Amino acid sequence: MLKRVIPFAHELIQKATKPGEIVVDATCGNGHDTIVLCKATGPNGKVYAFDVQKAAIENTQALLDANNITHAELIHDSHHHVDRYLKEEQDLLAGAIFNLGYLPGSNKSVITKPEYTLEAINKMLALLKVGGVIVCVVYYGHPGGQEEKDALINKLGQLNQKKYQVLQYGFINQRNHPPFIIAIEKKNDKLL
Amino acid sequence: MLKRVIPFAHELIQKATKPGEIVVDATCGNGHDTIVLCKATGPNGKVYAFDVQKAAIENTQALLDANNITHAELIHDSHHHVDRYLKEEQDLLAGAIFNLGYLPGSNKSVITKPEYTLEAINKMLALLKVGGVIVCVVYYGHPGGQEEKDALINKLGQLNQKKYQVLQYGFINQRNHPPFIIAIEKKNDKLL
Repeated sequence: MLKRVIPFAHELIQKATKPGEIVVDATCGNGHDTIVLCKATGPNGKVYAFDVQKAAIENTQALLDANNITHAELIHDSHHHVDRYLKEEQDLLAGAIFNLGYLPGSNKSVITKPEYTLEAINKMLALLKVGGVIVCVVYYGHPGGQEEKDALINKLGQLNQKKYQVLQYGFINQRNHPPFIIAIEKKNDKLL
Repeated sequence: MLKRVIPFAHELIQKATKPGEIVVDATCGNGHDTIVLCKATGPNGKVYAFDVQKAAIENTQALLDANNITHAELIHDSHHHVDRYLKEEQDLLAGAIFNLGYLPGSNKSVITKPEYTLEAINKMLALLKVGGVIVCVVYYGHPGGQEEKDALINKLGQLNQKKYQVLQYGFINQRNHPPFIIAIEKKNDKLL
Protein backbone atom coordinates (compact mmCIF):
# COMPACT_ATOMS: atom_id res chain seq x y z
CA MET A 1 0.00 0.00 0.00
CA LEU A 2 2.66 2.51 1.08
CA LYS A 3 5.11 2.62 -1.82
CA ARG A 4 8.64 1.58 -0.99
CA VAL A 5 11.43 4.03 -1.68
CA ILE A 6 12.74 2.80 -5.05
CA PRO A 7 9.29 2.33 -6.68
CA PHE A 8 8.26 5.76 -5.40
CA ALA A 9 11.43 7.32 -6.88
CA HIS A 10 10.70 5.71 -10.24
CA GLU A 11 7.07 6.79 -10.13
CA LEU A 12 8.05 10.43 -9.59
CA ILE A 13 10.41 10.42 -12.58
CA GLN A 14 7.88 8.60 -14.77
CA LYS A 15 5.14 11.10 -13.89
CA ALA A 16 7.40 14.06 -14.67
CA THR A 17 8.69 12.73 -18.00
CA LYS A 18 6.84 12.71 -21.32
CA PRO A 19 7.96 10.58 -24.28
CA GLY A 20 10.63 12.40 -26.27
CA GLU A 21 12.01 14.37 -23.33
CA ILE A 22 15.47 14.52 -21.80
CA VAL A 23 16.41 13.10 -18.40
CA VAL A 24 19.64 12.57 -16.48
CA ASP A 25 20.79 9.55 -14.52
CA ALA A 26 23.33 11.28 -12.30
CA THR A 27 24.79 8.03 -10.93
CA CYS A 28 24.15 5.19 -13.33
CA GLY A 29 25.67 2.56 -11.03
CA ASN A 30 24.69 -0.84 -12.37
CA GLY A 31 22.24 0.67 -14.86
CA HIS A 32 18.88 -0.30 -13.38
CA ASP A 33 17.65 3.29 -13.11
CA THR A 34 19.06 4.06 -16.57
CA ILE A 35 16.76 1.42 -18.04
CA VAL A 36 13.76 2.88 -16.18
CA LEU A 37 14.63 6.37 -17.46
CA CYS A 38 15.07 5.13 -21.05
CA LYS A 39 11.59 3.61 -20.90
CA ALA A 40 10.18 6.90 -19.54
CA THR A 41 11.64 9.02 -22.37
CA GLY A 42 10.99 6.41 -25.04
CA PRO A 43 13.32 6.00 -28.05
CA ASN A 44 12.66 9.56 -29.25
CA GLY A 45 13.94 10.97 -25.97
CA LYS A 46 17.43 11.02 -24.52
CA VAL A 47 19.03 9.84 -21.30
CA TYR A 48 22.38 11.22 -20.16
CA ALA A 49 23.89 8.80 -17.65
CA PHE A 50 26.89 9.82 -15.56
CA ASP A 51 29.24 7.85 -13.36
CA VAL A 52 32.79 8.42 -12.12
CA GLN A 53 33.48 4.69 -11.99
CA LYS A 54 34.47 2.82 -15.14
CA ALA A 55 32.88 -0.37 -13.83
CA ALA A 56 29.53 1.42 -13.56
CA ILE A 57 29.72 2.68 -17.15
CA GLU A 58 30.61 -0.81 -18.38
CA ASN A 59 27.86 -2.51 -16.37
CA THR A 60 25.29 0.00 -17.58
CA GLN A 61 26.40 -0.35 -21.22
CA ALA A 62 26.05 -4.13 -20.95
CA LEU A 63 22.55 -3.80 -19.51
CA LEU A 64 21.51 -1.33 -22.23
CA ASP A 65 22.89 -3.65 -24.93
CA ALA A 66 21.02 -6.61 -23.45
CA ASN A 67 17.84 -4.55 -23.65
CA ASN A 68 18.55 -3.19 -27.16
CA ILE A 69 18.41 0.38 -25.89
CA THR A 70 20.40 2.96 -27.84
CA HIS A 71 19.08 6.36 -26.71
CA ALA A 72 21.26 6.66 -23.60
CA GLU A 73 24.58 8.51 -23.68
CA LEU A 74 26.93 7.18 -21.03
CA ILE A 75 29.39 9.74 -19.67
CA HIS A 76 32.40 8.64 -17.65
CA ASP A 77 32.63 11.82 -15.59
CA SER A 78 31.19 13.31 -12.41
CA HIS A 79 27.62 14.63 -12.48
CA HIS A 80 28.84 17.99 -11.20
CA HIS A 81 30.29 18.50 -14.69
CA VAL A 82 26.81 18.18 -16.19
CA ASP A 83 27.12 21.66 -17.72
CA ARG A 84 29.98 20.45 -19.92
CA TYR A 85 27.61 18.04 -21.64
CA LEU A 86 24.17 19.64 -21.47
CA LYS A 87 24.69 23.18 -22.73
CA GLU A 88 21.48 24.05 -24.55
CA GLU A 89 18.94 22.13 -22.51
CA GLN A 90 17.80 25.09 -20.38
CA ASP A 91 14.18 24.42 -19.25
CA LEU A 92 14.19 21.17 -21.23
CA LEU A 93 15.29 18.71 -18.58
CA ALA A 94 12.27 16.68 -17.40
CA GLY A 95 14.00 15.00 -14.50
CA ALA A 96 17.10 13.58 -12.92
CA ILE A 97 17.80 10.80 -10.47
CA PHE A 98 20.69 10.53 -8.02
CA ASN A 99 21.58 7.43 -6.05
CA LEU A 100 23.74 8.88 -3.32
CA GLY A 101 26.19 6.69 -1.46
CA TYR A 102 28.47 4.13 -3.11
CA LEU A 103 28.31 1.79 -6.10
CA PRO A 104 26.34 -1.32 -5.05
CA GLY A 105 28.61 -4.34 -5.06
CA SER A 106 31.77 -2.23 -4.90
CA ASN A 107 34.12 -1.84 -1.95
CA LYS A 108 32.44 1.41 -0.78
CA SER A 109 35.71 3.31 -1.16
CA VAL A 110 34.23 5.63 -3.80
CA ILE A 111 31.32 7.59 -2.35
CA THR A 112 29.36 10.62 -3.46
CA LYS A 113 30.41 13.84 -1.70
CA PRO A 114 27.96 16.51 -0.57
CA GLU A 115 29.76 19.48 -2.18
CA TYR A 116 29.77 17.85 -5.61
CA THR A 117 26.27 16.45 -5.18
CA LEU A 118 24.92 19.91 -4.32
CA GLU A 119 26.82 21.53 -7.21
CA ALA A 120 25.34 18.95 -9.57
CA ILE A 121 21.82 19.44 -8.19
CA ASN A 122 22.08 23.22 -8.54
CA LYS A 123 23.27 22.94 -12.14
CA MET A 124 20.42 20.56 -12.97
CA LEU A 125 17.84 22.80 -11.27
CA ALA A 126 18.90 25.49 -13.76
CA LEU A 127 18.16 23.08 -16.63
CA LEU A 128 14.91 21.70 -15.20
CA LYS A 129 11.56 22.41 -16.88
CA VAL A 130 8.64 23.68 -14.82
CA GLY A 131 7.02 20.54 -13.38
CA GLY A 132 10.28 18.63 -13.70
CA VAL A 133 11.68 16.75 -10.74
CA ILE A 134 15.08 15.88 -9.31
CA VAL A 135 14.91 12.73 -7.20
CA CYS A 136 17.70 11.87 -4.76
CA VAL A 137 17.72 8.39 -3.24
CA VAL A 138 19.93 8.88 -0.22
CA TYR A 139 21.90 5.93 1.18
CA TYR A 140 23.71 7.04 4.31
CA GLY A 141 24.72 3.95 6.32
CA HIS A 142 28.37 4.09 5.15
CA PRO A 143 31.16 6.30 6.55
CA GLY A 144 30.52 9.82 5.25
CA GLY A 145 26.86 9.06 4.59
CA GLN A 146 25.45 10.90 7.58
CA GLU A 147 27.38 14.06 6.62
CA GLU A 148 25.98 13.94 3.09
CA LYS A 149 22.45 13.34 4.45
CA ASP A 150 22.70 16.31 6.83
CA ALA A 151 24.18 18.62 4.17
CA LEU A 152 21.44 17.74 1.68
CA ILE A 153 18.58 18.26 4.13
CA ASN A 154 20.10 21.52 5.33
CA LYS A 155 20.85 23.02 1.92
CA LEU A 156 17.85 21.72 -0.02
CA GLY A 157 15.60 22.72 2.89
CA GLN A 158 16.65 26.31 2.14
CA LEU A 159 15.50 26.31 -1.50
CA ASN A 160 13.04 29.13 -2.19
CA GLN A 161 9.53 27.76 -1.61
CA LYS A 162 8.14 30.04 -4.30
CA LYS A 163 10.32 28.29 -6.89
CA TYR A 164 10.63 24.74 -5.59
CA GLN A 165 8.81 22.11 -3.56
CA VAL A 166 11.22 19.91 -1.62
CA LEU A 167 9.71 16.65 -0.39
CA GLN A 168 11.25 14.19 2.06
CA TYR A 169 9.86 10.63 1.87
CA GLY A 170 11.10 7.77 3.97
CA PHE A 171 10.34 5.01 6.44
CA ILE A 172 11.26 5.83 10.01
CA ASN A 173 10.93 2.46 11.77
CA GLN A 174 13.50 0.45 9.82
CA ARG A 175 16.92 -0.68 11.00
CA ASN A 176 20.20 -0.37 9.12
CA HIS A 177 19.75 3.13 7.69
CA PRO A 178 17.40 2.36 4.78
CA PRO A 179 17.56 4.91 1.94
CA PHE A 180 15.09 7.79 1.84
CA ILE A 181 14.08 10.25 -0.86
CA ILE A 182 14.49 13.97 -1.29
CA ALA A 183 12.58 15.14 -4.37
CA ILE A 184 12.64 18.67 -5.77
CA GLU A 185 9.96 19.92 -8.15
CA LYS A 186 10.35 23.17 -10.05
CA LYS A 187 7.22 25.29 -9.68
CA ASN A 188 5.82 27.76 -12.16
CA ASP A 189 6.79 30.93 -10.30
CA LYS A 190 5.38 33.06 -13.11
CA LEU A 191 1.93 32.06 -11.87
CA LEU A 192 2.60 33.63 -8.48
CA MET B 1 3.44 16.72 -9.55
CA LEU B 2 4.52 16.13 -5.94
CA LYS B 3 1.27 15.62 -4.04
CA ARG B 4 0.62 18.10 -1.28
CA VAL B 5 0.07 16.80 2.23
CA ILE B 6 -3.74 16.77 2.47
CA PRO B 7 -4.35 15.18 -0.97
CA PHE B 8 -1.67 12.58 -0.21
CA ALA B 9 -3.34 11.77 3.14
CA HIS B 10 -6.69 11.32 1.42
CA GLU B 11 -5.14 9.17 -1.31
CA LEU B 12 -3.65 6.80 1.26
CA ILE B 13 -6.99 6.31 3.01
CA GLN B 14 -8.86 5.91 -0.27
CA LYS B 15 -6.38 3.26 -1.48
CA ALA B 16 -6.66 1.31 1.78
CA THR B 17 -10.48 1.36 1.95
CA LYS B 18 -12.88 -0.76 -0.04
CA PRO B 19 -16.61 0.04 -0.33
CA GLY B 20 -18.50 -1.38 2.64
CA GLU B 21 -15.57 -1.16 5.07
CA ILE B 22 -15.17 0.66 8.37
CA VAL B 23 -12.93 3.69 8.92
CA VAL B 24 -12.35 6.15 11.74
CA ASP B 25 -12.03 9.92 11.62
CA ALA B 26 -10.16 10.42 14.88
CA THR B 27 -10.53 14.22 14.85
CA CYS B 28 -13.51 15.23 12.76
CA GLY B 29 -12.86 18.96 13.16
CA ASN B 30 -14.97 20.78 10.61
CA GLY B 31 -15.92 17.54 8.86
CA HIS B 32 -13.99 17.78 5.60
CA ASP B 33 -12.12 14.52 6.16
CA THR B 34 -15.32 12.85 7.40
CA ILE B 35 -16.90 13.52 4.00
CA VAL B 36 -13.86 12.07 2.21
CA LEU B 37 -13.99 8.96 4.40
CA CYS B 38 -17.75 8.53 3.87
CA LYS B 39 -17.16 8.57 0.12
CA ALA B 40 -14.38 5.99 0.49
CA THR B 41 -16.53 3.51 2.44
CA GLY B 42 -19.65 4.22 0.40
CA PRO B 43 -23.14 4.05 1.95
CA ASN B 44 -22.74 0.35 2.84
CA GLY B 45 -19.68 1.14 4.97
CA LYS B 46 -19.40 3.01 8.23
CA VAL B 47 -17.43 6.00 9.47
CA TYR B 48 -16.90 6.60 13.18
CA ALA B 49 -15.97 10.24 13.68
CA PHE B 50 -14.62 11.43 17.03
CA ASP B 51 -14.04 14.88 18.47
CA VAL B 52 -13.77 16.25 21.99
CA GLN B 53 -15.18 19.62 20.93
CA LYS B 54 -18.94 20.07 20.64
CA ALA B 55 -18.47 22.70 17.91
CA ALA B 56 -16.62 20.14 15.80
CA ILE B 57 -19.41 17.57 16.14
CA GLU B 58 -22.02 20.20 15.23
CA ASN B 59 -20.05 21.49 12.24
CA THR B 60 -19.48 17.97 10.97
CA GLN B 61 -23.16 17.02 11.39
CA ALA B 62 -24.17 20.11 9.41
CA LEU B 63 -21.76 19.23 6.61
CA LEU B 64 -22.98 15.62 6.51
CA ASP B 65 -26.59 16.81 6.40
CA ALA B 66 -25.81 19.20 3.57
CA ASN B 67 -24.33 16.27 1.65
CA ASN B 68 -27.17 13.85 2.52
CA ILE B 69 -24.72 11.45 4.14
CA THR B 70 -26.12 9.18 6.86
CA HIS B 71 -23.51 6.44 7.36
CA ALA B 72 -21.26 8.37 9.75
CA GLU B 73 -21.63 8.02 13.52
CA LEU B 74 -20.44 11.16 15.30
CA ILE B 75 -19.02 10.55 18.77
CA HIS B 76 -18.49 13.45 21.16
CA ASP B 77 -15.58 11.86 23.01
CA SER B 78 -11.81 11.54 22.74
CA HIS B 79 -10.35 9.16 20.16
CA HIS B 80 -8.37 7.40 22.91
CA HIS B 81 -11.70 5.96 24.05
CA VAL B 82 -12.14 4.29 20.65
CA ASP B 83 -12.35 0.87 22.33
CA ARG B 84 -15.55 1.92 24.09
CA TYR B 85 -17.28 2.25 20.73
CA LEU B 86 -15.54 -0.23 18.41
CA LYS B 87 -15.55 -3.51 20.34
CA GLU B 88 -15.93 -6.20 17.70
CA GLU B 89 -14.07 -4.63 14.81
CA GLN B 90 -10.78 -6.50 15.35
CA ASP B 91 -8.97 -6.75 11.97
CA LEU B 92 -11.90 -5.00 10.29
CA LEU B 93 -10.75 -1.38 10.44
CA ALA B 94 -9.56 -0.29 6.98
CA GLY B 95 -8.08 3.01 8.07
CA ALA B 96 -8.10 6.01 10.34
CA ILE B 97 -7.13 9.62 9.97
CA PHE B 98 -5.88 11.98 12.67
CA ASN B 99 -5.51 15.73 12.29
CA LEU B 100 -3.19 16.56 15.13
CA GLY B 101 -3.03 20.07 16.52
CA TYR B 102 -6.06 22.24 17.20
CA LEU B 103 -9.51 22.76 15.70
CA PRO B 104 -9.14 25.06 12.66
CA GLY B 105 -10.90 28.35 13.32
CA SER B 106 -10.89 27.83 17.08
CA ASN B 107 -8.81 29.70 19.66
CA LYS B 108 -6.13 26.94 19.75
CA SER B 109 -6.73 26.40 23.47
CA VAL B 110 -7.81 22.78 22.91
CA ILE B 111 -4.97 20.78 21.38
CA THR B 112 -4.31 17.08 20.89
CA LYS B 113 -1.89 15.63 23.46
CA PRO B 114 0.77 13.07 22.60
CA GLU B 115 -0.11 10.58 25.35
CA TYR B 116 -3.74 10.37 24.28
CA THR B 117 -2.85 10.43 20.58
CA LEU B 118 -0.45 7.52 21.04
CA GLU B 119 -2.97 5.58 23.14
CA ALA B 120 -5.57 6.09 20.42
CA ILE B 121 -3.16 5.04 17.67
CA ASN B 122 -2.18 1.89 19.56
CA LYS B 123 -5.82 0.94 20.09
CA MET B 124 -6.59 1.48 16.42
CA LEU B 125 -3.54 -0.52 15.32
CA ALA B 126 -5.09 -3.46 17.21
CA LEU B 127 -8.29 -3.04 15.17
CA LEU B 128 -6.57 -2.44 11.81
CA LYS B 129 -6.82 -5.00 9.00
CA VAL B 130 -3.70 -6.16 7.19
CA GLY B 131 -3.07 -3.54 4.50
CA GLY B 132 -4.99 -0.94 6.49
CA VAL B 133 -3.45 2.43 7.19
CA ILE B 134 -3.48 5.02 9.96
CA VAL B 135 -2.69 8.48 8.63
CA CYS B 136 -1.64 11.28 10.98
CA VAL B 137 -1.55 14.82 9.59
CA VAL B 138 0.67 16.57 12.11
CA TYR B 139 0.28 20.31 12.67
CA TYR B 140 2.93 21.47 15.12
CA GLY B 141 3.30 25.25 14.82
CA HIS B 142 1.26 25.94 17.98
CA PRO B 143 2.49 25.77 21.61
CA GLY B 144 2.79 22.07 22.49
CA GLY B 145 2.98 21.08 18.82
CA GLN B 146 6.71 20.43 18.73
CA GLU B 147 6.43 18.10 21.75
CA GLU B 148 3.69 16.11 20.09
CA LYS B 149 5.69 15.92 16.84
CA ASP B 150 8.80 14.66 18.65
CA ALA B 151 6.84 12.12 20.72
CA LEU B 152 5.11 10.72 17.62
CA ILE B 153 8.30 10.37 15.58
CA ASN B 154 10.09 8.80 18.52
CA LYS B 155 7.39 6.30 19.49
CA LEU B 156 6.06 5.41 16.05
CA GLY B 157 9.66 5.07 14.81
CA GLN B 158 9.98 2.20 17.28
CA LEU B 159 7.09 0.15 15.87
CA ASN B 160 8.20 -3.35 14.88
CA GLN B 161 9.24 -3.25 11.22
CA LYS B 162 8.06 -6.81 10.74
CA LYS B 163 4.51 -5.76 11.60
CA TYR B 164 4.30 -2.16 10.41
CA GLN B 165 5.68 0.24 7.84
CA VAL B 166 5.91 3.79 9.18
CA LEU B 167 6.26 6.46 6.51
CA GLN B 168 7.12 10.12 7.03
CA TYR B 169 6.05 12.44 4.18
CA GLY B 170 6.54 16.18 4.22
CA PHE B 171 7.95 19.27 2.57
CA ILE B 172 11.15 20.54 4.13
CA ASN B 173 11.58 23.96 2.52
CA GLN B 174 8.39 25.66 3.67
CA ARG B 175 8.04 28.34 6.31
CA ASN B 176 5.54 28.41 9.17
CA HIS B 177 5.67 24.75 10.18
CA PRO B 178 3.50 23.23 7.45
CA PRO B 179 1.85 19.93 8.44
CA PHE B 180 3.50 16.63 7.52
CA ILE B 181 2.27 13.04 7.45
CA ILE B 182 3.12 9.97 9.45
CA ALA B 183 1.36 6.94 7.95
CA ILE B 184 1.37 3.45 9.46
CA GLU B 185 0.48 0.39 7.38
CA LYS B 186 -0.14 -2.99 8.99
CA LYS B 187 1.85 -5.68 7.20
CA ASN B 188 0.93 -9.32 6.84
CA ASP B 189 3.45 -10.74 9.31
CA LYS B 190 2.10 -14.24 8.74
CA LEU B 191 3.81 -14.15 5.36
CA LEU B 192 7.22 -13.69 7.01
